[in-house]
Amino acid sequence: MKVLPEKTVERLSKYRRILNVEYERGERYIFSHELANLLHLTSVQVRRDLMLIEYSGSHKRGYEIKSLIEHIGNIIDPKGDINIVIVGMGNFGKAIAHYFNKRGKHYKVIAGFYRNASHCSTVFDGIPCLPISELQDFIQKNDVKMGVITVPPQQAEIVMHQLVEAGIKGILNYTPKPLKVPEGVFLEEYDVITSFEKVNYFIG
Amino acid sequence: MKVLPEKTVERLSKYRRILNVEYERGERYIFSHELANLLHLTSVQVRRDLMLIEYSGSHKRGYEIKSLIEHIGNIIDPKGDINIVIVGMGNFGKAIAHYFNKRGKHYKVIAGFYRNASHCSTVFDGIPCLPISELQDFIQKNDVKMGVITVPPQQAEIVMHQLVEAGIKGILNYTPKPLKVPEGVFLEEYDVITSFEKVNYFIG
Repeated sequence: MKVLPEKTVERLSKYRRILNVEYERGERYIFSHELANLLHLTSVQVRRDLMLIEYSGSHKRGYEIKSLIEHIGNIIDPKGDINIVIVGMGNFGKAIAHYFNKRGKHYKVIAGFYRNASHCSTVFDGIPCLPISELQDFIQKNDVKMGVITVPPQQAEIVMHQLVEAGIKGILNYTPKPLKVPEGVFLEEYDVITSFEKVNYFIG
Repeated sequence: MKVLPEKTVERLSKYRRILNVEYERGERYIFSHELANLLHLTSVQVRRDLMLIEYSGSHKRGYEIKSLIEHIGNIIDPKGDINIVIVGMGNFGKAIAHYFNKRGKHYKVIAGFYRNASHCSTVFDGIPCLPISELQDFIQKNDVKMGVITVPPQQAEIVMHQLVEAGIKGILNYTPKPLKVPEGVFLEEYDVITSFEKVNYFIG
């Protein structure tokens, strides 16, 4: 299978999320237009995405939910555990640590880092909080694959460089400061304001 | 102008974010392929979006950054302030309240609500935290336009119904529980796991 487009991977994650809900509700099959409706997409889009992952349904019954959930998992889930560090353990960093501690199957937040070493005496949700001076060493010793940036925006760029220098290939930037990463590093950014602007536009 | 597609509105928000950075760096003009590169899009996509908002650049110099920033603002920014309530003042709710308190120009978080009334004695960042029993009354008295759901997932559905009953037309769901809203209500959902799954796929 060829490398999938970013937006397809994003939608596969969302399809699975909805499929799990439908499966728990007792549904066993779903048509492309039903899946599309639940996510405000077109059925053409859904069919095209599932063709890309070489999954086909039956004309009469649609897609078999359980096997589609598994098929998507085989494509987007990591084979083993993915170790993650969060830089910036403010409210947002804590929220993410807590999320994965409670429900993360494949993703493990194994440490949080503070820019300000004097704030580092704590353990949050069982996760050690370390001073940023230990970041590089920690990443290399613990096979860390992803770094999450939740520091104040003016510190985002320097933290990004520290993660990249330590060998991190996958970065999630949750600050409002857009970043540019070097070739070979994958960056995903989420700025809260975009969601609010979308809602505002459609209720306006 | 016709109502824009959801994805276009999302990209307009992202264009503006990048355009602000470029403007601060001293840039005054930008070509569609430059803007596209910064966001991992195609220049065809960028040109199509800007055609939809009836904005055109010059062939020689590209788009004028400052006027494009203003043009996007005229389309996606609210005319007055938008009052917001957050239901669930855990780490995630606090992070969002803090974000808008510090940098929100048009969006005002005016109250947080707890499901559990015994947790309600506090004020966070100057925002009162109230028991959920007061939600409906508060929304109607304070012209609240948007509700943010950051409660535990098993409570998300009931909170959504309470917001809808109180007359809220725009909901942001930050729980991992997918919701279905009635006709006439706009729902935006963000599940942290999707971002992590995307990064994992592209570094895998």
